[in-house]
Amino acid sequence: MMAALSFQGAILALQRFWGDHGCLIWQPYNQQIGAGTMNPATALRVLGPEPWNVAYVEPSIRPDDGRYGENPNRLQQHYQYQVILQPDPGDPQELYLRSLAVLGIDAALHDIRFVEDNWEQPAIGAWGLGWEVWLDGQEITQFTYFQQVGGVTLDPVAVELTYGLERILIALQRVKGFCDIQWTDDITYGEVNLPAEQQHSRYYFEVADVERLRSLYDLCQAEAATALQAGLLLPAYDYALKCSHTFNVLDTRGAVGVTERARFFGDMRALVRQVAQGYVEQRRELGFPLLAAEQAEAPAVPVPDLPQPPADPQAYLLEIGVEELPAGDLAGALAQLREQVPALLAERRLPHGEIRVWGTPRRLAVLIEELPPRQRQLEKVVRGPSLRDAFDAEGNPTRAAKGFARGQRVHVSDLKRRELDGGAYVVAIVREEGRPLPEVLVEIAPAILDGLRFERSMRWLPGADSMAFSRPIRWLLSLLGSARLPFEYAGLTAGRETRALRAAHAQPLEVPEASAYVALLAQHRVMLEPAERRECIATDARRLAAGVEGEIAPDDELLAEVANLVECPTAFLGEFDPDFLQLPQPVLTAVMKKQQRYFPVVKDGALLPFFVGVRNGAAENLELVVEGNEHVIRARFADASYFVRQDSQRALPEFRAGLSRLVFQEQLGSMLDKSERIEKLTGELAALLGLDAAEGETALRAAHLAKADLATSMVVEMTALQGVMGREYALDAGEPAEVARAIEEHYWPLGAGGQLPQALAGLTVGLADRLDSLVGLFAVGLTPTGAADPFGQRRTALGAVQLLLGGQIDVDLRAGLHAAAALQPVGADNAVEQAADFLVQRLRGVLRERGYRHDVVEAALGVQGGNPWRAQQAAEQLSVWVARADWQPTLDAFARCVRILPDGDAAVAPEPELFREDAERELWVALQAAESALAAQSEPPGVDDFLSAFTLTIPAITRFFDAVLVMDDDAAVRANRLALLRRVAVLADGTLDLSKLEGF
Amino acid sequence: MMAALSFQGAILALQRFWGDHGCLIWQPYNQQIGAGTMNPATALRVLGPEPWNVAYVEPSIRPDDGRYGENPNRLQQHYQYQVILQPDPGDPQELYLRSLAVLGIDAALHDIRFVEDNWEQPAIGAWGLGWEVWLDGQEITQFTYFQQVGGVTLDPVAVELTYGLERILIALQRVKGFCDIQWTDDITYGEVNLPAEQQHSRYYFEVADVERLRSLYDLCQAEAATALQAGLLLPAYDYALKCSHTFNVLDTRGAVGVTERARFFGDMRALVRQVAQGYVEQRRELGFPLLAAEQAEAPAVPVPDLPQPPADPQAYLLEIGVEELPAGDLAGALAQLREQVPALLAERRLPHGEIRVWGTPRRLAVLIEELPPRQRQLEKVVRGPSLRDAFDAEGNPTRAAKGFARGQRVHVSDLKRRELDGGAYVVAIVREEGRPLPEVLVEIAPAILDGLRFERSMRWLPGADSMAFSRPIRWLLSLLGSARLPFEYAGLTAGRETRALRAAHAQPLEVPEASAYVALLAQHRVMLEPAERRECIATDARRLAAGVEGEIAPDDELLAEVANLVECPTAFLGEFDPDFLQLPQPVLTAVMKKQQRYFPVVKDGALLPFFVGVRNGAAENLELVVEGNEHVIRARFADASYFVRQDSQRALPEFRAGLSRLVFQEQLGSMLDKSERIEKLTGELAALLGLDAAEGETALRAAHLAKADLATSMVVEMTALQGVMGREYALDAGEPAEVARAIEEHYWPLGAGGQLPQALAGLTVGLADRLDSLVGLFAVGLTPTGAADPFGQRRTALGAVQLLLGGQIDVDLRAGLHAAAALQPVGADNAVEQAADFLVQRLRGVLRERGYRHDVVEAALGVQGGNPWRAQQAAEQLSVWVARADWQPTLDAFARCVRILPDGDAAVAPEPELFREDAERELWVALQAAESALAAQSEPPGVDDFLSAFTLTIPAITRFFDAVLVMDDDAAVRANRLALLRRVAVLADGTLDLSKLEGF
Repeated sequence: MMAALSFQGAILALQRFWGDHGCLIWQPYNQQIGAGTMNPATALRVLGPEPWNVAYVEPSIRPDDGRYGENPNRLQQHYQYQVILQPDPGDPQELYLRSLAVLGIDAALHDIRFVEDNWEQPAIGAWGLGWEVWLDGQEITQFTYFQQVGGVTLDPVAVELTYGLERILIALQRVKGFCDIQWTDDITYGEVNLPAEQQHSRYYFEVADVERLRSLYDLCQAEAATALQAGLLLPAYDYALKCSHTFNVLDTRGAVGVTERARFFGDMRALVRQVAQGYVEQRRELGFPLLAAEQAEAPAVPVPDLPQPPADPQAYLLEIGVEELPAGDLAGALAQLREQVPALLAERRLPHGEIRVWGTPRRLAVLIEELPPRQRQLEKVVRGPSLRDAFDAEGNPTRAAKGFARGQRVHVSDLKRRELDGGAYVVAIVREEGRPLPEVLVEIAPAILDGLRFERSMRWLPGADSMAFSRPIRWLLSLLGSARLPFEYAGLTAGRETRALRAAHAQPLEVPEASAYVALLAQHRVMLEPAERRECIATDARRLAAGVEGEIAPDDELLAEVANLVECPTAFLGEFDPDFLQLPQPVLTAVMKKQQRYFPVVKDGALLPFFVGVRNGAAENLELVVEGNEHVIRARFADASYFVRQDSQRALPEFRAGLSRLVFQEQLGSMLDKSERIEKLTGELAALLGLDAAEGETALRAAHLAKADLATSMVVEMTALQGVMGREYALDAGEPAEVARAIEEHYWPLGAGGQLPQALAGLTVGLADRLDSLVGLFAVGLTPTGAADPFGQRRTALGAVQLLLGGQIDVDLRAGLHAAAALQPVGADNAVEQAADFLVQRLRGVLRERGYRHDVVEAALGVQGGNPWRAQQAAEQLSVWVARADWQPTLDAFARCVRILPDGDAAVAPEPELFREDAERELWVALQAAESALAAQSEPPGVDDFLSAFTLTIPAITRFFDAVLVMDDDAAVRANRLALLRRVAVLADGTLDLSKLEGF
Repeated sequence: MMAALSFQGAILALQRFWGDHGCLIWQPYNQQIGAGTMNPATALRVLGPEPWNVAYVEPSIRPDDGRYGENPNRLQQHYQYQVILQPDPGDPQELYLRSLAVLGIDAALHDIRFVEDNWEQPAIGAWGLGWEVWLDGQEITQFTYFQQVGGVTLDPVAVELTYGLERILIALQRVKGFCDIQWTDDITYGEVNLPAEQQHSRYYFEVADVERLRSLYDLCQAEAATALQAGLLLPAYDYALKCSHTFNVLDTRGAVGVTERARFFGDMRALVRQVAQGYVEQRRELGFPLLAAEQAEAPAVPVPDLPQPPADPQAYLLEIGVEELPAGDLAGALAQLREQVPALLAERRLPHGEIRVWGTPRRLAVLIEELPPRQRQLEKVVRGPSLRDAFDAEGNPTRAAKGFARGQRVHVSDLKRRELDGGAYVVAIVREEGRPLPEVLVEIAPAILDGLRFERSMRWLPGADSMAFSRPIRWLLSLLGSARLPFEYAGLTAGRETRALRAAHAQPLEVPEASAYVALLAQHRVMLEPAERRECIATDARRLAAGVEGEIAPDDELLAEVANLVECPTAFLGEFDPDFLQLPQPVLTAVMKKQQRYFPVVKDGALLPFFVGVRNGAAENLELVVEGNEHVIRARFADASYFVRQDSQRALPEFRAGLSRLVFQEQLGSMLDKSERIEKLTGELAALLGLDAAEGETALRAAHLAKADLATSMVVEMTALQGVMGREYALDAGEPAEVARAIEEHYWPLGAGGQLPQALAGLTVGLADRLDSLVGLFAVGLTPTGAADPFGQRRTALGAVQLLLGGQIDVDLRAGLHAAAALQPVGADNAVEQAADFLVQRLRGVLRERGYRHDVVEAALGVQGGNPWRAQQAAEQLSVWVARADWQPTLDAFARCVRILPDGDAAVAPEPELFREDAERELWVALQAAESALAAQSEPPGVDDFLSAFTLTIPAITRFFDAVLVMDDDAAVRANRLALLRRVAVLADGTLDLSKLEGF
């Protein structure tokens, strides 16, 4: 192993590497900026069609990352190494890995991973998809395909690599933290920069003068506008950067309120957008000069011919080679393939044997067995002229018939006669021969690719409307038996090559035939089957945990995610300083699971100072990997410890005021405003839900504190800990245990199947929180559309429904919604209906998922939609009734009564003296008996109550209709009979809408 | 020749070079700063005793250098490469030259020169001595030994190298300007940065909002103070840098007035000073951690033994090897050596043959011929006891005499008797043997070095009070005949090695013996004798000029300077675009002479498009040198052209308002204030000097415009053109020719022997200007002390004196001074006397220089000091009188009259009736005749008048004293005689103070 590079040696190596690879070497910017991205060499240069390859160091200033020099790798100034490759060179990951090798990072000794990361910088209207690159668990690089900057769509797309130099050097030099990095052979990073870390941290957190900085911001903003007006984009951009830094300092000082924040962000975005648009315009006026320098495009390589159709059934293998897919996208793609491939085959008339679908982060594979040499023949019936027109009186075919036959290429004598749509026609039976298998497959293969959808897709090829995918597709493997089945897609031509693990082999592997694929990859350690990877990880993790007398708490979600992050899982055991166990366990667990995807090791429910991580690669050379991961968790825990220590300086209630700085929604105010609304609404709901005095008091206190932890450092850092920290800090502050519990539980259920609050206090606060959100967000016009639900309104509504169902709370949500509406800072009356409908939709989903018949659900929701618990009861009971053998007569009886009623009449009492027939009187008596039975219920009648009561009237109804003509000529008699029947109909009011049922 | 490096390639090469040479590689700073020096990695890190070696790129922002991208090498942002070596590594110039070689600059093909440059940055309280390094006439690097930063004296001294990357790359790549530099192989510098140049230039010059920036400045200053108060030096320094940049922008916008400028500068200096002092303190508290990393000092090498004394007379050679001396220091050192070496030899009793003194920028050499093997013997007379005490009554020596003899190591019988100071003593004649020559020479050699003084000296060795010299001494050559005569000085041990031209040989040369020195260096092309170099340059220049049918206007000053800048002069002819000849010729001449030290080529008084430059080195490979120099002059002329074009947008009178932004002196106001005072004073002086109406009008108009050109771009850029541009622009503006001439001439004489104004108008304005300065500056307490005369008061006073002498103006300056005092914005009455005395001192100097006898000058000044012209007349006439054979009797006669007079009596008329003797009456008659003769003069009587008249009274005076006893017993008679004699004495009043004369 070569001696580790010094800090400056590493920079020099990168400069040389990227310079040799065609990058212009640029310099750090002369403003305090938060990232190399903000340097105009990135933020502006990537705009427009010109090619641009650049690399530079950027000492990046992030005031709120200041840790007074005490954290091993979190600093108010860290050194980024920034690379832009525009357009995508086609192999940016390989280039990147080669640059790591130049730094001395031997991929064989480490675990290098591409972990999904979707980058977004709203302040400059920019976003992109890509990864964090992890080196032994440590994020060392941000790797992004820029899609948009300054609100301008990038074409071509730019690849951005942002190396975190401190972290890389900590790993390379195997030191404990940034201070110990050798900057040169003689001088450490700490000797160079520690005083600056300490002083700037103190300045940003404690000393910066808020009023003065606010003025500074305003001046810079105004000066930017002045420059912009004069068409001076670069000076304007400089001032925008000054605004951005000043804002960051203000924010770190905790000085940015809701209104200001919105103003700041809006201003900055608008400014950068104008600069960006102006920039493209200026480049256009210059004639995009760098375009000229671009290389002539390589001449198109002709696509090879298709193979001859095989003689026997063959297996077809399609492998889509991709850059690392997000775990969720991988799972989604596999599910889609399982569904779509058979459908596509059927559509193309290809019978087939077993279809196997596999996937890893780097590949999606489909193996279709026993495909016949040709498509099935197609037989189509084509309608011709009517019989009358097709044959003359003599029964000879007319010209019309002959023309039709000719057109269909059949002999006129082959025309057949058929009854179609109630008429008689001649038809032609047209047969289409099945095309050869290769021809069909090369249509199916691209269709498979076309059919895949992802939550977020990205472009990487030139052309603003070029194809999009989860991540770039880098190779296509297409084998029919042993023959290559070439097709073109996404700028690639499908061939017979696949790739093994990144770490093991840089060269592609040839696959001799479709059936050899699985074995070949297994031989090269790629485990294609996700379930196998899960099993492998779970088993190893248990074994490793047992080795330290611990165990792994089951977590299927984490297991599934981890299994989808690797191609060759190797679990390993890491250790951390037991002192960290003094931190709240949920914090440790969250750090391990959420931030690092580690499996915590527990014993008797308590954490042990160990974790199980998973390497992507073989079991050899684990030492550095373990060491690296242990370093990461130490830094992570140190940071958590810093936050908890920070937070411990104040008691939870004191944090509440800090909520004023967190925006809930621009028009709906801060989280403090929301928190106050929740508290009031909790009071009203407590009455509605019938909480006793003690419960009510607990609920009110919990509501008061429920959101306070959002202002703590720990939760600001890890949102997943909201509620959990609230509980911890509430207990620390001496709040009653029930209050603490309610604070945590008010977020429950966390997901669709999540645990529900154990006590009414938490439930009530949670409901208040959700109803407030729903009504408020609808009131300001925010409605989820399609996949977009930025405020999580669906989840919020679902949570409210689940709370009532799970708590078996019999309450109509409309009352709560109205109460919530009255508390909003904006007019919210119209929103109540909208929110109620939205809740009904969620409830519908829940009931359908629970297996109730569609019409049963609708019958229940039609009347009781506002009260989930009762609606579910209704559906439950109705389901039993509709399953009964005698259900249809029951329904018929009710339907007969209802159907004859004219719309819109009010229910009036029938007058017994107007009854003419006994059947009328009999029905009246039976009806009154049923009414009495229902009225005897202490609670509002349920479905069982109603139907049981109604059943009593059925014989009378039957007789009534047998004996009585409702529509008597005497208007008074007629009206009286209708009144009697309406009295039957309204029996169902408030319980069911039977008209929604099948057979009504 | 290797292919030229790209811009980024050059940076990479420097990073590698300096990294390999122990420098920490640092990054550009995240603020807009004007130079790498401002980066805290220089400005703060050089403070305190710690070693610090660092190198980095600094894209430096200088708003007023913005040229909209139109100048070949002047930019609002240029890239510096900054290197700090602290302590001085001993060979920084060699290191630097090696770094140039790494860039591909072959010293054999170029002319690389170290041209004196004294760097000062008052805004941060910093200064140092060093050079501009010239590559073929182009400044490519600033090379400075920092002496002080932030008001803190550096110990150890830091060497700062600041490469100008654009200029280096323009030369390396042989392109026309910055736009054409290849940044990479594919992309030019212009493609990268031209739009930024254009936009930022426009922003700085036209768009920046003055009021807003002023507020910005105030905010940053206040925030700096806040940070400072909290001990946060680095944040405070950042804000100081923001202040500095903001100030620069304001200045470029032309928005900084007098008061503000003073405030700005004072504030910034104070701020940086506090940061600097605090920084040292903080480092001290940390225990100066980098000191520990310092290498142990090399063990001391013992000084070799001295050679045996020679048997015969020998020559001694001392060569002081230095880094390039400023031309003036070289001349001064040679003069000092010529004076001091003989004195030192005499003092040490060393007879000698010829002493030869030579020098080049890199060496001072003294060759002393025929030194004897030993010092001359010393004979000393030591006084012993008085004769009385030395011998007893018997004439035998006493104990005192014996003791004295023993003490002086002589035999008592060898004591002699001598008369001394009017007493009789015994004395011992003590003989000290001469010490051997080597022993004496090793004392003389350091004394020679110690004796040298320079206008400004610098330290380079550790220790705040270490030795100082013009530039560092790098080697000492000391040979007695062929023997090395070692001694230690300035950390060096003298040896037998010298060095040849930098370009030719990197290795030292051994000198076999003293007498071989001249020939050896001549063989290596070093021309030791300045006169020879001057002659060589002058001859070649004439020849080259003749080749293009032109000639060189004689300029001894330039010739002497150039000859002192080279060791091996080679003149070459360069050419420039004749279009530039449209610029005013004084501009072109000034650029060539002042900025480039070129000899302009003229024909019939008009410039030709050629110049003669001088290379330091041989005549081979001149092509690149000529090309480089031609490039430089093109850029220089382009810049001059830019300024003249700028200026042409307004007429001269319009620039006058701009003087309000130039400070004359803080309390005395702006140059506009001064200009207004000059105008008023000119009016008063015109009357005093008797100008006629037309002359007066011309003078007033000229006074109005005299300073206006100081606000023009051309003069701001080249102060040497003040007055000259005023004349040019006045003519352009349609002012009368006499006014234009007076504007130029009011600065005359430019130096001690300079030309005087041709017309009274210019003289009057010039006098007004000077009297205003003198009175004003004394009024605010500014008095030149020792060598320090920052406002040039001595030159100003001398100029005033020369004006009156040259113009033969008979006027008493006191009147003018009083008028000037009345116009000052501060109380100036006391300053008039001070200024008058100061003028008399200058006048004394002038008269002494003109050869008048000391006592004659004093006799004239004693009475007529206020009127230089009359004082000179007096001295002139008196000189003739005192040379006469009969002078002493004349003087005696006058003296007899005067000496007897008691002090303080008023002159009263004698009363003839009180005369007792004829001799009294006779003298009275003679005296009245003399008085009548003097009174008959139309002008105030001169010396000739007075003495001619007095001569008439001499016989009467003689008789008077022969016959009369002045001190008669009768008080009335006595008083009357004294009154008569006083009447004689006052004859000289207003003409001479004869009492100052020798023999009085």
